[in-house]
Amino acid sequence: MDYGALDAELRDRNADGVVHVGDRFDDDLRYLTGFSGPDREYAFVYDGEGGEAILCAPQLFEEQAQREFSGTVVSAAEQEATTAGERAADLVSGTVLVPQSIPHDTALWLERAGCDLESTAVVERMRSRKTEAEIERIRTVQEAAQTGMARAETVLASTEVEGDPLIWEERVLTTERLRREANAAMALEGVNPVGNTVIGAGERCADLHFTGDIPIKRGETVLLDLSPRGPEGYYGDLSRTFVVDLEGGWERRAYVAVERAQEAAFDALSEGAGTLASTVHEETAAEISAYGFRPDGTPGFTHGTGHGVGMSLHEAPSLRSDTELEAGMVLTVEPGVYDPQEGGVRIEDLVVVREEGFENLTEYPRSLVPEVRSSGQ
Amino acid sequence: MDYGALDAELRDRNADGVVHVGDRFDDDLRYLTGFSGPDREYAFVYDGEGGEAILCAPQLFEEQAQREFSGTVVSAAEQEATTAGERAADLVSGTVLVPQSIPHDTALWLERAGCDLESTAVVERMRSRKTEAEIERIRTVQEAAQTGMARAETVLASTEVEGDPLIWEERVLTTERLRREANAAMALEGVNPVGNTVIGAGERCADLHFTGDIPIKRGETVLLDLSPRGPEGYYGDLSRTFVVDLEGGWERRAYVAVERAQEAAFDALSEGAGTLASTVHEETAAEISAYGFRPDGTPGFTHGTGHGVGMSLHEAPSLRSDTELEAGMVLTVEPGVYDPQEGGVRIEDLVVVREEGFENLTEYPRSLVPEVRSSGQ
Repeated sequence: MDYGALDAELRDRNADGVVHVGDRFDDDLRYLTGFSGPDREYAFVYDGEGGEAILCAPQLFEEQAQREFSGTVVSAAEQEATTAGERAADLVSGTVLVPQSIPHDTALWLERAGCDLESTAVVERMRSRKTEAEIERIRTVQEAAQTGMARAETVLASTEVEGDPLIWEERVLTTERLRREANAAMALEGVNPVGNTVIGAGERCADLHFTGDIPIKRGETVLLDLSPRGPEGYYGDLSRTFVVDLEGGWERRAYVAVERAQEAAFDALSEGAGTLASTVHEETAAEISAYGFRPDGTPGFTHGTGHGVGMSLHEAPSLRSDTELEAGMVLTVEPGVYDPQEGGVRIEDLVVVREEGFENLTEYPRSLVPEVRSSGQ
Repeated sequence: MDYGALDAELRDRNADGVVHVGDRFDDDLRYLTGFSGPDREYAFVYDGEGGEAILCAPQLFEEQAQREFSGTVVSAAEQEATTAGERAADLVSGTVLVPQSIPHDTALWLERAGCDLESTAVVERMRSRKTEAEIERIRTVQEAAQTGMARAETVLASTEVEGDPLIWEERVLTTERLRREANAAMALEGVNPVGNTVIGAGERCADLHFTGDIPIKRGETVLLDLSPRGPEGYYGDLSRTFVVDLEGGWERRAYVAVERAQEAAFDALSEGAGTLASTVHEETAAEISAYGFRPDGTPGFTHGTGHGVGMSLHEAPSLRSDTELEAGMVLTVEPGVYDPQEGGVRIEDLVVVREEGFENLTEYPRSLVPEVRSSGQ
């Protein structure tokens, strides 16, 4: 792990150290340490003077910390203090940079130890620009998401459409059955479906985070959004929309608008590093508008064009922000059109910004009518 | 959701409200709201005077909050404040109870709004004693873990043992291949393997949280610890240890010690509510000691006998604590014996404490030699 950005921030801010406390679900901490940790708090300390990164390992997790963290591991037995905040406070002094949302008790321990606290967003900035090694990890997770999508698309293509709802393997196909098939296919590829597998059908496609169980009917949109997490903590993010036994005009119109909008986003991104994030969103929304849908509400486009993906599923930058895109930023490109009376269509790829243009990390076909897919690519 | 315990705590503490801020990975918050939320901060506010529970829903998540939360949903558009902490501060006054680890910026917003902050552990206490509805959710997740274990045990029982390492379906069987099979089987049951599937082989069984990829050999212990998470956020927790082509004396001795230790724990738990948690651990450790292994170190028992399981994989109470067990507490019972030179054995069931005795939520056979299992039960 390269902590050069922490050194630079400490110099700029004339500060002495960085402290971060959280549990395994704190993505900044996992990014800083590589430690997949326990579900209780532990501390990361960066000492600016010696350039030393320290992990205060929780009891029973010393071995795992040694295996996963490249810096110095301090075991619980080596410290008198017991809480993560107090242990961190024992290892720093002077001006300490912390994230805004550091646990309140940790802040109090640090202040009691005489430290001056200042908040920093340096970790968010570090995370937004990925190294090639991080990009390869994300690519691998995205490939597993593609395998999950291929399984789900194949199931949809294999349904019987005689009656309504759809029948698959002699039972009614529901969003939950489809979710389980996609999740199992992703698990076999070594990634974890961590509760983010959103599958909507018909009107519920307009409900952006629908994870319930409803029958899937012929002629309605089926929107799948797969965002598994890989073993090193990085996410993938892939959405496709299908209609079995397509007839309706709305579904076709919405699909064409969304396909064209994604192309407009790609056109904007082809300028590469230096492009304003909000320009990508504006170009995308304008294209949706050109097809007769609202660019900023229902019926139409109800969310942003994309967000950063990495150690968190949603991280900086947002494509609605006025950030200048930098090489190495990994972003979703996911226009959508929703109408609570009709359904919803979204297509989502994952791309990485390059100095010149961008690279699409997704290689999954786009087709409104589901086909049998032999694999994810 | 019954917030009676919050009312009682507010009366006892002479306080006016409860505030909690976190993201979807904050299990207290998910417990209080049922909201599976986004990966950015949102706020829960409980107003003691009116007995009103309020969720400050993040943008784009209003629909999901309405669907999942039984109290009042306040949308982002209804409030001028934008951060979760500031939004919460707008809705409370007087003495406000917060968890110790509330985000520091939320604490500052509340103080700026004139609130007096006091920390509370009421949510941890509420969570430790499960309702029957919660127990049923945990039972369902445990059943899915059993299906995962059955798949893994069947794979082990189906290996070819001619050479070393083991061969399964014409390729070397590794801990990662076995993990993927178990995870996929659990995903098909509708639960999520969220990165906690620990599978050790041989010496690496002594490394309690091993998630790496190594070949599995004949005659060595294979330790599987499955702890998937269900769609409503509750965990299961199940461990078994197998040896393919068993010969060694150490593996047999360790297994007998661990089996007997688990029986000793069950004997202690059969006293039901009122039993001291630490008594269960002491009886278990004493039995391991009686078989010639260390009760508190290597080679022997290196961890506690169990912990609470619910919305977190590890929660109160620990079986090493001096808590009196209460009816409705869901606990793991997981003695183990580890020797870095030999391997490791752990057997883990999930039980619920009843007024009289306890109920085992696990129905999975115990056998050191793997067998082909047709299902999880």
